[in-house]
Amino acid sequence: MSTAETIDKATDGSSDAPLLIRREDAVTVLTLNRPAARNALAECLLDALAAAFADLHDDAETKTVVLTGAPPAFCAGHDLREMTEARAQADRGRAYFATIFAKCSAVMQAIVACPKPVIAAVDGIATAAGCQLVATCDLAVAGAGARFATPGVNIGLFCSTPMVALTRNVSPKHAMEMLLTGEMADAGRAEAIGLVNRVVPEGQALEAAMALARLIADKSPLTVKTGKEAFYRQREMPLADAYAYTARVMTENMLARDAEEGIGAFLEKRKPVWTGS
Amino acid sequence: MSTAETIDKATDGSSDAPLLIRREDAVTVLTLNRPAARNALAECLLDALAAAFADLHDDAETKTVVLTGAPPAFCAGHDLREMTEARAQADRGRAYFATIFAKCSAVMQAIVACPKPVIAAVDGIATAAGCQLVATCDLAVAGAGARFATPGVNIGLFCSTPMVALTRNVSPKHAMEMLLTGEMADAGRAEAIGLVNRVVPEGQALEAAMALARLIADKSPLTVKTGKEAFYRQREMPLADAYAYTARVMTENMLARDAEEGIGAFLEKRKPVWTGS
Amino acid sequence: MSTAETIDKATDGSSDAPLLIRREDAVTVLTLNRPAARNALAECLLDALAAAFADLHDDAETKTVVLTGAPPAFCAGHDLREMTEARAQADRGRAYFATIFAKCSAVMQAIVACPKPVIAAVDGIATAAGCQLVATCDLAVAGAGARFATPGVNIGLFCSTPMVALTRNVSPKHAMEMLLTGEMADAGRAEAIGLVNRVVPEGQALEAAMALARLIADKSPLTVKTGKEAFYRQREMPLADAYAYTARVMTENMLARDAEEGIGAFLEKRKPVWTGS
Repeated sequence: MSTAETIDKATDGSSDAPLLIRREDAVTVLTLNRPAARNALAECLLDALAAAFADLHDDAETKTVVLTGAPPAFCAGHDLREMTEARAQADRGRAYFATIFAKCSAVMQAIVACPKPVIAAVDGIATAAGCQLVATCDLAVAGAGARFATPGVNIGLFCSTPMVALTRNVSPKHAMEMLLTGEMADAGRAEAIGLVNRVVPEGQALEAAMALARLIADKSPLTVKTGKEAFYRQREMPLADAYAYTARVMTENMLARDAEEGIGAFLEKRKPVWTGS
Repeated sequence: MSTAETIDKATDGSSDAPLLIRREDAVTVLTLNRPAARNALAECLLDALAAAFADLHDDAETKTVVLTGAPPAFCAGHDLREMTEARAQADRGRAYFATIFAKCSAVMQAIVACPKPVIAAVDGIATAAGCQLVATCDLAVAGAGARFATPGVNIGLFCSTPMVALTRNVSPKHAMEMLLTGEMADAGRAEAIGLVNRVVPEGQALEAAMALARLIADKSPLTVKTGKEAFYRQREMPLADAYAYTARVMTENMLARDAEEGIGAFLEKRKPVWTGS
Repeated sequence: MSTAETIDKATDGSSDAPLLIRREDAVTVLTLNRPAARNALAECLLDALAAAFADLHDDAETKTVVLTGAPPAFCAGHDLREMTEARAQADRGRAYFATIFAKCSAVMQAIVACPKPVIAAVDGIATAAGCQLVATCDLAVAGAGARFATPGVNIGLFCSTPMVALTRNVSPKHAMEMLLTGEMADAGRAEAIGLVNRVVPEGQALEAAMALARLIADKSPLTVKTGKEAFYRQREMPLADAYAYTARVMTENMLARDAEEGIGAFLEKRKPVWTGS
């Protein structure tokens, strides 16, 4: 549908790269691309995601990001084969495991720290760290066939890092049920408990996420960046501190050219032109 | 329906005052009264709200407060014309903006600090700081035609202070969707995400809020005051601290005459008589 | 259904004990057993619960705990007759009230600190501290006729300690409505607001809770213990701290024998055998 250039810059230039990166107008689409491994987060994929979010942080062309998986899965979490191989090391894998969990947690926090909204487009399964990705993204759209779980408890490895994102998104009893039973929640349940924003017909999650991404890309990027940063910072503050902080944020926001333009356009009933300053 | 005196004490004595204040029995009704400006929170209205909540804090006649808007809107947020005029000042409005956001945040915190429960009665739109008022009130009732949004992102001014109240009431994905898209949530959606307690037929929000206010006004005011204060204080504490604090609160509460009377009346199957001591 | 031994060890050896304790396979069932007083939490029952959770903490035979009430109620909260009697003391009951609220809060925190998941099975009413028990348990199942309330406000004694658990489980407007009105929420409403995980036909809560308990008892106890502890600890941390902490937890978890066994079994498509080490 886009009339603008579409850039394919898979991290190593081929479609075999673990992460595909393309841009459609102001939306960058990141596709987890290890479909044979249900897009499991092997170290190479975590590194590619870290590099992508580092690039996106100050990328002037990108206003919103969509994160999806090469069908049929969204993401099945960590790569258990790769992790099991590390057990052969002298320290039984301790250093490797610490590195992998640190890298994965850094990617999650890079999504939160990304000035551009990140929208998960989920068809198929999103399990363990894959479910964590969904919980971590600012917004999430699911196809009707999508399924979500934190099933680590079934293999002796509790989903402790996924739990950080999950418990900050859904209520405790709902999170505990997923974490203790390891059972699948279907798309309707995920919507009901607040894990995803909306459910669309199966196979249409990417399209719906793109529509949402384009809608938000039309807003002032400076304003969106200001708001997203304040969202996560104020959330961890006591009420009085949160108000003192956001009142300062709004004062600075009012003095930015985009607010002057936006409010002026609103009062004059015309369309604003953002300059991001 | 009330048999008691009804006092109209608009802040300047006329029905043109920005805030109308009347009392029906033990319920004080505050009506945002700038209907031509969709009850936007001009500085004069913020000042009137601050004064009203200062008066209500120790008002022995008032047991609950209902906050509503002169039809057809509930409240459209800040007064953008007034704020735009401040741009002509030497500092481009910086001092004025800081004052306005501080005043608005103080009103929101005065609602939280008010010993009497405050119930929003919403018919029509509640947007930006108007939506924040709804999120801030202890309880909220919406007419079926009510609509809610944090649309600042559309005019270059992210709803950062409204976000403080919104994110403390609804789950992160729901809050982010409202904040990033700026789109309207209808009454049913507002109920589903926890922004309002219940939806009643269009035009009946005030009546339903009054019924709720009268129900709560029949309780012991001392008990309600004790509980409301503890509600917001314990919420910001770690679990162990919250239990230590509320156990102390309950011990003092047990020693108050109203608890002795209430428990005695319950055990004797009679109606209690509150003395508020 | 169980083929294993069933132990009845009511705290004083008789079925008149305030708390009945029995084990079915790996599930210990605690039954509040003061049906004539709607299982109110008299001091003797609080003491029995404290002793039971102390025993369960390191009980190698128990993998999950179900908490229920002798019909027809689940639990009606504190024992108001017992508390009223304390008013005859020289200090008007102050020391006694402080002791009771401290004991009750300690029981709630013992449920949170119990390494085994605790599941509430609720048929009948769960009010005041009885509602707090439901909110405090890791999971909760309700029969269709179950009803929930924090009605202290009706007797002059605000449900301040129950509020600690309630506000950590349901959204603020929903909690405030229960606390300020004191009115009953039926099972469907309790499910909708996240107070219980699921609703089953009336009278089947215990059976459904047992099924859930057996499902979780099949997981690795070490893994479940690791996860439950981390759940409540990380919840009170800022995001970055929570990730640093849980990344350490997962690294240690990976090095445990149960994770090696569980992941190995998964990759080899066989059933794991847990050793809890």
